[in-house]
Amino acid sequence: MTTMLPGTSERSLVLVSGRAHLELAQDVAQELGIELLPTSAYDFANGEIYVRFGESVRGADVFVLQSHTSPINQWIMEQLLMVDAAKRASAKTVTVVQPFYGYGRQDKKHRGREPISARLMSDLFTTAGADRLMSVDLHAAQTQGFFDGPVDHLWAMPILTDYVRTRVDTNNVTVVSPDAGRIRVAEQWAARLGGGPLAFVHKTRDVTRPNQSVANRVVGDVEGRDCVLVDDLIDTGGTISEAVKVCKAAGANSVIVAATHGVLSDPAAQRLSECGASEVVITDTLPIAPEKRFSQLTVLSIAPLIARAIREVFDDGSVTSLFDGNS
Amino acid sequence: MTTMLPGTSERSLVLVSGRAHLELAQDVAQELGIELLPTSAYDFANGEIYVRFGESVRGADVFVLQSHTSPINQWIMEQLLMVDAAKRASAKTVTVVQPFYGYGRQDKKHRGREPISARLMSDLFTTAGADRLMSVDLHAAQTQGFFDGPVDHLWAMPILTDYVRTRVDTNNVTVVSPDAGRIRVAEQWAARLGGGPLAFVHKTRDVTRPNQSVANRVVGDVEGRDCVLVDDLIDTGGTISEAVKVCKAAGANSVIVAATHGVLSDPAAQRLSECGASEVVITDTLPIAPEKRFSQLTVLSIAPLIARAIREVFDDGSVTSLFDGNS
Amino acid sequence: MTTMLPGTSERSLVLVSGRAHLELAQDVAQELGIELLPTSAYDFANGEIYVRFGESVRGADVFVLQSHTSPINQWIMEQLLMVDAAKRASAKTVTVVQPFYGYGRQDKKHRGREPISARLMSDLFTTAGADRLMSVDLHAAQTQGFFDGPVDHLWAMPILTDYVRTRVDTNNVTVVSPDAGRIRVAEQWAARLGGGPLAFVHKTRDVTRPNQSVANRVVGDVEGRDCVLVDDLIDTGGTISEAVKVCKAAGANSVIVAATHGVLSDPAAQRLSECGASEVVITDTLPIAPEKRFSQLTVLSIAPLIARAIREVFDDGSVTSLFDGNS
Amino acid sequence: MTTMLPGTSERSLVLVSGRAHLELAQDVAQELGIELLPTSAYDFANGEIYVRFGESVRGADVFVLQSHTSPINQWIMEQLLMVDAAKRASAKTVTVVQPFYGYGRQDKKHRGREPISARLMSDLFTTAGADRLMSVDLHAAQTQGFFDGPVDHLWAMPILTDYVRTRVDTNNVTVVSPDAGRIRVAEQWAARLGGGPLAFVHKTRDVTRPNQSVANRVVGDVEGRDCVLVDDLIDTGGTISEAVKVCKAAGANSVIVAATHGVLSDPAAQRLSECGASEVVITDTLPIAPEKRFSQLTVLSIAPLIARAIREVFDDGSVTSLFDGNS
Amino acid sequence: MTTMLPGTSERSLVLVSGRAHLELAQDVAQELGIELLPTSAYDFANGEIYVRFGESVRGADVFVLQSHTSPINQWIMEQLLMVDAAKRASAKTVTVVQPFYGYGRQDKKHRGREPISARLMSDLFTTAGADRLMSVDLHAAQTQGFFDGPVDHLWAMPILTDYVRTRVDTNNVTVVSPDAGRIRVAEQWAARLGGGPLAFVHKTRDVTRPNQSVANRVVGDVEGRDCVLVDDLIDTGGTISEAVKVCKAAGANSVIVAATHGVLSDPAAQRLSECGASEVVITDTLPIAPEKRFSQLTVLSIAPLIARAIREVFDDGSVTSLFDGNS
Amino acid sequence: MTTMLPGTSERSLVLVSGRAHLELAQDVAQELGIELLPTSAYDFANGEIYVRFGESVRGADVFVLQSHTSPINQWIMEQLLMVDAAKRASAKTVTVVQPFYGYGRQDKKHRGREPISARLMSDLFTTAGADRLMSVDLHAAQTQGFFDGPVDHLWAMPILTDYVRTRVDTNNVTVVSPDAGRIRVAEQWAARLGGGPLAFVHKTRDVTRPNQSVANRVVGDVEGRDCVLVDDLIDTGGTISEAVKVCKAAGANSVIVAATHGVLSDPAAQRLSECGASEVVITDTLPIAPEKRFSQLTVLSIAPLIARAIREVFDDGSVTSLFDGNS
Repeated sequence: MTTMLPGTSERSLVLVSGRAHLELAQDVAQELGIELLPTSAYDFANGEIYVRFGESVRGADVFVLQSHTSPINQWIMEQLLMVDAAKRASAKTVTVVQPFYGYGRQDKKHRGREPISARLMSDLFTTAGADRLMSVDLHAAQTQGFFDGPVDHLWAMPILTDYVRTRVDTNNVTVVSPDAGRIRVAEQWAARLGGGPLAFVHKTRDVTRPNQSVANRVVGDVEGRDCVLVDDLIDTGGTISEAVKVCKAAGANSVIVAATHGVLSDPAAQRLSECGASEVVITDTLPIAPEKRFSQLTVLSIAPLIARAIREVFDDGSVTSLFDGNS
Repeated sequence: MTTMLPGTSERSLVLVSGRAHLELAQDVAQELGIELLPTSAYDFANGEIYVRFGESVRGADVFVLQSHTSPINQWIMEQLLMVDAAKRASAKTVTVVQPFYGYGRQDKKHRGREPISARLMSDLFTTAGADRLMSVDLHAAQTQGFFDGPVDHLWAMPILTDYVRTRVDTNNVTVVSPDAGRIRVAEQWAARLGGGPLAFVHKTRDVTRPNQSVANRVVGDVEGRDCVLVDDLIDTGGTISEAVKVCKAAGANSVIVAATHGVLSDPAAQRLSECGASEVVITDTLPIAPEKRFSQLTVLSIAPLIARAIREVFDDGSVTSLFDGNS
Repeated sequence: MTTMLPGTSERSLVLVSGRAHLELAQDVAQELGIELLPTSAYDFANGEIYVRFGESVRGADVFVLQSHTSPINQWIMEQLLMVDAAKRASAKTVTVVQPFYGYGRQDKKHRGREPISARLMSDLFTTAGADRLMSVDLHAAQTQGFFDGPVDHLWAMPILTDYVRTRVDTNNVTVVSPDAGRIRVAEQWAARLGGGPLAFVHKTRDVTRPNQSVANRVVGDVEGRDCVLVDDLIDTGGTISEAVKVCKAAGANSVIVAATHGVLSDPAAQRLSECGASEVVITDTLPIAPEKRFSQLTVLSIAPLIARAIREVFDDGSVTSLFDGNS
Repeated sequence: MTTMLPGTSERSLVLVSGRAHLELAQDVAQELGIELLPTSAYDFANGEIYVRFGESVRGADVFVLQSHTSPINQWIMEQLLMVDAAKRASAKTVTVVQPFYGYGRQDKKHRGREPISARLMSDLFTTAGADRLMSVDLHAAQTQGFFDGPVDHLWAMPILTDYVRTRVDTNNVTVVSPDAGRIRVAEQWAARLGGGPLAFVHKTRDVTRPNQSVANRVVGDVEGRDCVLVDDLIDTGGTISEAVKVCKAAGANSVIVAATHGVLSDPAAQRLSECGASEVVITDTLPIAPEKRFSQLTVLSIAPLIARAIREVFDDGSVTSLFDGNS
Repeated sequence: MTTMLPGTSERSLVLVSGRAHLELAQDVAQELGIELLPTSAYDFANGEIYVRFGESVRGADVFVLQSHTSPINQWIMEQLLMVDAAKRASAKTVTVVQPFYGYGRQDKKHRGREPISARLMSDLFTTAGADRLMSVDLHAAQTQGFFDGPVDHLWAMPILTDYVRTRVDTNNVTVVSPDAGRIRVAEQWAARLGGGPLAFVHKTRDVTRPNQSVANRVVGDVEGRDCVLVDDLIDTGGTISEAVKVCKAAGANSVIVAATHGVLSDPAAQRLSECGASEVVITDTLPIAPEKRFSQLTVLSIAPLIARAIREVFDDGSVTSLFDGNS
Repeated sequence: MTTMLPGTSERSLVLVSGRAHLELAQDVAQELGIELLPTSAYDFANGEIYVRFGESVRGADVFVLQSHTSPINQWIMEQLLMVDAAKRASAKTVTVVQPFYGYGRQDKKHRGREPISARLMSDLFTTAGADRLMSVDLHAAQTQGFFDGPVDHLWAMPILTDYVRTRVDTNNVTVVSPDAGRIRVAEQWAARLGGGPLAFVHKTRDVTRPNQSVANRVVGDVEGRDCVLVDDLIDTGGTISEAVKVCKAAGANSVIVAATHGVLSDPAAQRLSECGASEVVITDTLPIAPEKRFSQLTVLSIAPLIARAIREVFDDGSVTSLFDGNS
């Protein structure tokens, strides 16, 4: 008799999902050719969440997908509880998949005595048991560094630019950033759309009207151009719809709005539908409720990108190909 | 000239509160003779919470109070963000004060593939920066051990028993536990009310009615007695109102219900008001909305207990006196 | 030539044992179809323990079994040293198998200024290098939450109830808890033995004899019944043998005592053999020295349960089936 | 006799410095009214660094200042060793003061399979024993979030803008960002200089010269304006001197270059002195060797800012006043 | 009313002791001018240890003293439990005082698959809550580096050499190391006793007797000299008593044995009393039971050294003076 | 359809190298039959290092080799950055291979207020992401315990002794330690060379020349013997070349110097070539620049030892065979 009992070393991938955006999770599962792991998840009368996996996850590489949509704190907590459950149920690894990184905008102290919420979220998931994070188009790429381990930072721009390229004359495009802080992204868009000019909207003192302190103004050429206004996310749509109007007022031929994450908090739908944009293009990293949809809205599927990344992670392939050369 | 710059070493106590139960925080502050630290806290359009302290907390012993009421995940997240903000703003110590410990009932895996949510909550607060926890009447005393540091486990029973003693004939009292798992608490109540008999309600096979598998039944003497039904919390009130009825059916003279935490999720108010209890006594560890109040309800203030504990912690006094001999 | 050297990924299970209860370890090994890993372990003259594994454990899933019997601190330290040695010898995973969880009863501060020893033990094993804990019938299920990782909480009740069912008339059984704090366990026993009535022993003021302050008393029906007194462990046997006498005095037809862990500190053997119990049933999670054995004692083997759990853990099977529906 | 020995609780501040930029450390010490703690620091023959404090730091709040200049890895390692020595010598707290945050530019993975060096640096200092970080004008404000504790992010812009305001006609100023990624900083400058217009230099396809793929171009009004080109740091000076030339070519009246950190690696001095800028304004967060100085260079002292921040930290004052409203 | 409650910041020192060597603890307390904190500590029937402090330690600098004598695992566990209790009782700092560092000799893997027990002990104390370690004459000075924080490594040599200097003619002394590994210590002794010659005992092949493979042999001059055989500890006394005999056989005039730690496991007392040494000098870092004492034994008190070090630590004085120039 | 996606579990070994000693890395790779992973590594103008792996390391067992030669801080930092990059690029495990352990001599506080640099280095690598360390002939074996995980401590002595045995008459050899602290190593050498006599060089007061306080002196027999002077490393060569001269002066027939690590800082080459040693034997754990070579120098290859150890680690074989019985 020997002292060693041999064992098999098969690996298996399991995808579980919180309740925030089941449709996306099912799309990803379908792309992977599997079914979501059956999971119980419901709220107790006082709002405490109960979760339980319906099948064993022992030894599996578990991907826990949740969309950080409203009520966002509930869904983040649910995801934390699912990670804890997976850890305690002997998952081999746990990957948190959050297509939109909740609290990503609070990535620094804008003023003293604030939290750095984006770092806190990363630490909370680590504490619960996450080995890896996967997210799409972080508000600031530095957020990768908030997690002490591998982060798969997926890049939705190719999906958006491939689509937008079919909607504009790339010889007449100007890419516009809605504010000074996002010009780097606009620069990347411009490069992918053929290297055309760049512009940005800027709050400034209007020297011609001394009594009015600040106004929005476009810096760069937009007159007669097909403008593409780009951002990482659209929340209430205030900044972006103002930017559309400024572009139009500055003589833009047309304006398409493109963003990865459609948060679309009220009154975004109304603002966007009425601002003069010819089209508003987003992905479904967050669920888009029927009442948020409007005629100019186009929603592209993010599921193929996430599924491909999960597959690569599981197969130890390279996810780098899902990024551009700069990411 | 010297190489050492001398400094003062004054200490200061600061009390900050989340938005869940401001009234309680104000009561505690008043007991302490201070005002709550001015704090900004609001929700962004997509539900993300923003917090910021209005004054410096550098070097202070900061007590962050939040009541884990519904929407509970939002309030827990808000408290986590406040702890992070206090840590990054150079608080000397951060004490989390959660009069009711949210997710305290999920303190073990009842079945496989569940989280242990109560442990997770403790770890989340540690990660955010908590040095100490303070809570009242934990669902299980073992939850103290989930935190790797000092836990001030306050004991509301004296407040409740002092009150109940004025409402019953202690020579004719039977303390009743609503189920088999809480008899230890009932035993402590009985001791404080003069050592009278104990009973509990138990689901069992009724041997006299073979076709009906299980029914609630009182084990112990309640006939003609003034019963005090005790529990740590009342959520939807199902178990406790059933227990009142069983006691009455078994001949109880009267039934008073007493519990520390009034979660009172729907339809607790209706059930309790109609179950036959002469009085329902709770504390205000959780806010009691007007629509949850009913004529038999008595709400005792927990603020003096919390204020005294905070004071003792700050003064390095002994909190042990706020516990009974067994806690 | 390539930059990648391929390798095999065979897994292997190794079982090592401390010196506290070698017989149990050998029984478990035999159930698994392997031999214990040869291990040197001895005490230096001043009591320091030396351990060394006789064969390589590199890359293996190592299960380190130790029975926390007296001298308990020595055996816990030996197990800690073995875990450290396994970690430093490149074990892939280390699972601590402690059939009886030492210091499990000190799972909270009963009074101020005490340690929470059960949590400390969990942390000590984590520090030494444990990835997982396995234990049988924890004193409080909450102790699972003291470990930040997977805990396999095995459940010996089926072994005990299967045996006891062959020794009593289940139509005439009353399950009795020796004190108010363990009634939940008694309730589970009652369910498995057919749903009969429940009782518990309670220290109370005897209203009929006013000058004698407290006495033990049975709450529930035991007259003419076959009683099964249940507990998780028997230490000195004082409480349990008193409970047997109280049941007999209250008219019980017979009393069987059942518990998972036979600590049996002096004078347990004498007390149990003389208390009037017809049989005392335990398992061998702890070694039972010959001088502790007495005629009414029955010792059931726990090895098959532990071996099955180890096998399931290694094969990434589900251990949930080794628990009842509530665990 | 009592069981408690009372003690004093005086606090003391100690400033120690590595060898990289002793002049700055002495300036800071002088501002604080103390002397630097005597410290031995030298290199062994093989380059290993030896450090030892010449006086006790027990119980002191120790500030360890090092300027991350070339040879940067040596100076970072020296600072790490000093932090370790302070921790082991029982310092009460250790604050790392790095006026320029070394490796701050590698704050994300620009491409796959890179380190996130800025996060790593933060973790290395935490590991060595740092309780707090203090730095001036981080390359990205998100770097604050790489440290799990208080970060004092000082803001040199007021020092620079106060000086520049004396050198330009604020009614004719255009603030220019040398590339698309730093416009946010330029926007803050513009606001402090009176709200004038903003511009940035952008690499783009020149549609009028189809055979030449990319060229630098100014977006925004600079013709006839007094330009202020702003950045957080100047390394080899390539980008910034090109930007000066582009501004001049676009008709700028004059160009002043301003930046916080004068890294000034070769051939920065030559480029800057020959690019056409009327003045180059930096601070002395890094030492400026004589051979790097040139006639147009102005070096402002950062010592008063650092000294004030250290003082505030020590006195538990508010450092927020050392930041602008947005930081 | 204000938002800040001011508080006092008095500090206090508390000394608590385990049961291993109460006499030493009382001597240290007396030197400090305080009484030991009243503490309950006893063993349960199964050997589990119970500890509880009799008075509050909130906010105090707590020194937990335990002598790691036999049964060593019990006393280490007791000390761990006391540290945990102090941490949970809100001690401000916890210093572990272990005059003899248990398991200090297992400071590396002598062979593969062993633990590094000395590192493990350090980690166990950190886990329990120790902020600082204090110990006397570690077996290897490197053990300081096993603890991630301040270590006060006290140096008993001056106590021993001051005494020995009164017992020998320093002009005729040879300091002898009992084996090749401890010569560095002997060298320090020689320096303190006036710089005389050095020798060591070495197992070697005796070239003059080819059939006998190895024998002990003195390397260095001992003939006619007063030898002082030095070591850090004496356990069973085998090596040291052999070394005495070898010195005598080589013509030594007299031999005094000196060591810091008198472990004195059987049969040390017999061996030492019969080996020919004129005197055996140790300190009382470990208790010396009456049956271990013999006529040539001299026990020096270590309490003044420990008390002085505790006092310095508490007063933020310098402990360096309690070490020699090399330590 | 199923919920589990099966995957392969192939393992792969990758060897990456910093820039310090590429020749050694290539030798190791060749022994393993692979090529080094293509890696970009260069210095920015200000000395910050940039590293990037040229191919994916996902799921691989990555060995990061760096030789800690001068400029040592740069090479250590480069290795830390490579470990961080490997961790973030999803390496399965990361092993740090440092043939010479930089800062290994600062393994304790020689005096107060020093760092313990060797421990700090270990912690820095852990923080960066190292799972395991591999090193050759640590200055003190206790350094193994500075790392909280597996350490492969390779032993070069067999390589050196196998060579030296071919150069001396083992019947006439005396092994000499250059100072009192390294005699244990000399003892191991003596055992491997046939058990001959041992000697050491010692600074002592020369009693025959009272006016000269200290001088080097050999303790042990060297007259007419072939001496082998052994040490773990040769830095500036001062001690060892003095020892050669002392041996020669004491009548040694010849002296060979042997050491594992040839640090060879100036003026080691000159000293060694002129001291009278017949041969100086080292390994190439550190690169030996051409200007450091001299006629008596022999450099043995360490690559086979390292390659064999890497292979064993990867194959879960036993590395113990690469150590002697005492290591």
